[in-house]
Amino acid sequence: MLINKKHYRTIWLKDGNDKVIQVIDQRYLPHKLVIEDLGTLDEVIIAIKDMHVRGAGLIGVTAGYGMYLAVLEDASRNSINDYIFNSAQKLKAARPTAVNLEWAVNFQLSEIAKGKTIEEKINISRETAKKIADNDAEFSRKIGLHGYKIIEEISKHKNGETVNILTHCNAGWLAFVDYGSATSPIYEAFNRNIKIHVWVDETRPRNQGASLTAWELLNHEVPHTIIADNTGGHLMQHGMVDMVITGADRVTRTGDAANKIGTYLKALAAKDNGIPFYIAMPSTTIDWNIRNGLSEIPIEQRDPDEVKYIQGLCDGELKKVLLTPEQSPAANYGFDITPSRLITGFITERGICEASEKGLIGLYPEMEHK
Amino acid sequence: MLINKKHYRTIWLKDGNDKVIQVIDQRYLPHKLVIEDLGTLDEVIIAIKDMHVRGAGLIGVTAGYGMYLAVLEDASRNSINDYIFNSAQKLKAARPTAVNLEWAVNFQLSEIAKGKTIEEKINISRETAKKIADNDAEFSRKIGLHGYKIIEEISKHKNGETVNILTHCNAGWLAFVDYGSATSPIYEAFNRNIKIHVWVDETRPRNQGASLTAWELLNHEVPHTIIADNTGGHLMQHGMVDMVITGADRVTRTGDAANKIGTYLKALAAKDNGIPFYIAMPSTTIDWNIRNGLSEIPIEQRDPDEVKYIQGLCDGELKKVLLTPEQSPAANYGFDITPSRLITGFITERGICEASEKGLIGLYPEMEHK
Repeated sequence: MLINKKHYRTIWLKDGNDKVIQVIDQRYLPHKLVIEDLGTLDEVIIAIKDMHVRGAGLIGVTAGYGMYLAVLEDASRNSINDYIFNSAQKLKAARPTAVNLEWAVNFQLSEIAKGKTIEEKINISRETAKKIADNDAEFSRKIGLHGYKIIEEISKHKNGETVNILTHCNAGWLAFVDYGSATSPIYEAFNRNIKIHVWVDETRPRNQGASLTAWELLNHEVPHTIIADNTGGHLMQHGMVDMVITGADRVTRTGDAANKIGTYLKALAAKDNGIPFYIAMPSTTIDWNIRNGLSEIPIEQRDPDEVKYIQGLCDGELKKVLLTPEQSPAANYGFDITPSRLITGFITERGICEASEKGLIGLYPEMEHK
Repeated sequence: MLINKKHYRTIWLKDGNDKVIQVIDQRYLPHKLVIEDLGTLDEVIIAIKDMHVRGAGLIGVTAGYGMYLAVLEDASRNSINDYIFNSAQKLKAARPTAVNLEWAVNFQLSEIAKGKTIEEKINISRETAKKIADNDAEFSRKIGLHGYKIIEEISKHKNGETVNILTHCNAGWLAFVDYGSATSPIYEAFNRNIKIHVWVDETRPRNQGASLTAWELLNHEVPHTIIADNTGGHLMQHGMVDMVITGADRVTRTGDAANKIGTYLKALAAKDNGIPFYIAMPSTTIDWNIRNGLSEIPIEQRDPDEVKYIQGLCDGELKKVLLTPEQSPAANYGFDITPSRLITGFITERGICEASEKGLIGLYPEMEHK
């Protein structure tokens, strides 16, 4: 997508040195555009854990490139199998909720196993990482092509009046390689001149909405308004939201969705006010092995200081300020589960389906007996 | 209540100069305890508008003292009736949602009208302001005496295990004169050695939970944990909340409640998880003239910069930092409406009742034909 009219992806191999990965370090957005070099597996793990990169898709893609770096490191150490296997375990443990990470690492492992020499393994893992990235971008693009039709339909019902879409967190291109999941239908509708306006939940405690989604939309010139996470219910009660679209970090076979903490509250409000609530995600986000979101999806707990302190711009510099009494404890749960009964439908790269096993198997019949 | 073991109220006549009101300037909490002198009506209006003082009860009490200052100013201007009437209008317009403000100003007007001389009016308005403050404290105290029984009951059901109570915003003693509304049953239960723990919603955008409720509870040594507003639904899904208590800024005759933006979302989650959701408020918060919260209670819109910027402590100094892209617009709605169907009951100074006209009239039979 565009930053100041120039096209970017969130991750790429460094020009002139394909042993280094480059990413947009998202901790500095919206205030500064910082490109970071990742040259080792450990740097990749830190980038995932400390959220230099974040978002279901991008975590997976970054892990894919991390496996490539692991193979390179392994080659220089002559210890091929154990090192790669251990690297895979370390990568998977970096963040527990999003299934894309596990998926990407496992896919790399099975591909790397096909290489017979170290050189082959290096080539395979580099090309596999690129392929995971390209697939991610392509899946996101297709989500937009399916999803914009829902927006178009609402626009028609409103006789072309502005369609108000609420989104939570950042399921934008910054959470993937390009286009995004929740934002992809938004960009597609906007590019087709459908009149839209986006309510952007700021998404405490990490403020991905206020700092990333707003910044994305601003760069693409999509009309939007940032709101406190508390606000969506009020807007829905007053007819100021026509639909909700969020992303997801893991979706069960039965259609329960783990997404950024607070998504469940918006889904409840949408239900209470008869407003369609869609989740947009590539099929790499579906965990076909589990059925019950509440009991089977691990919910990450992060550092309480992410609640107690916040970073912002003050006199041109990034400053971290304390928001609470220093001695008060805080808790920081990263995700919650939106049960399938509250979800109007899923928007995936293959199309739109209802939030149920039947719906998902309808789009992915090859998974029926898996 | 106690600050560093010393007893404070939120507002009082200055020692040695009863023409000056003193308040805790809550904009500096939890980082600094600042006492502010208010010597003119205009200073009172600024203190209410810019939230040096806030909270349904305290806004009303401050407006009561503001009317006293208006009478003093009027006396020095020889223009008695119009000035007082205009002052009343200006005070009422300072913040639109809480009905306590309107109630206190109207009560002062009717009392002041009984004075025949300027001296009498001054005395009456000063004593009425004190009476409004004392009443507020007494109502809050009684809310605690009724409300703790609900907590005690839950404690018994849990065989004395910790009762987890979630609260939103600050309906603490800082929102009233003393004790608070939502916090009064909490303090009472704590003082009676019932094991409790409070989940404190930080309450964006003004962070009254993180900065005021947490600070209150810390000073009273009540176990608590600060959470992002997004978190409550997750906690409820996992059995980590036994009850919710919030305050209210205006309650309709039929039991709809306006409270800090986001309350409605917590009420939905409580309903979805079968968790009791109580609203604690003095009867001065009930607007007996209206029936429909959604259509009849005005919802204040505040400066978008309260969403875009936040104040915190950095290197020992209070700093304001920008959280969003500078050009992104923000919206800032102050309150939302929780429909009576989502409220388990009201806790008032007269006791506990169901959230309905029947319930409220049961406690306030004198209002049946008003």
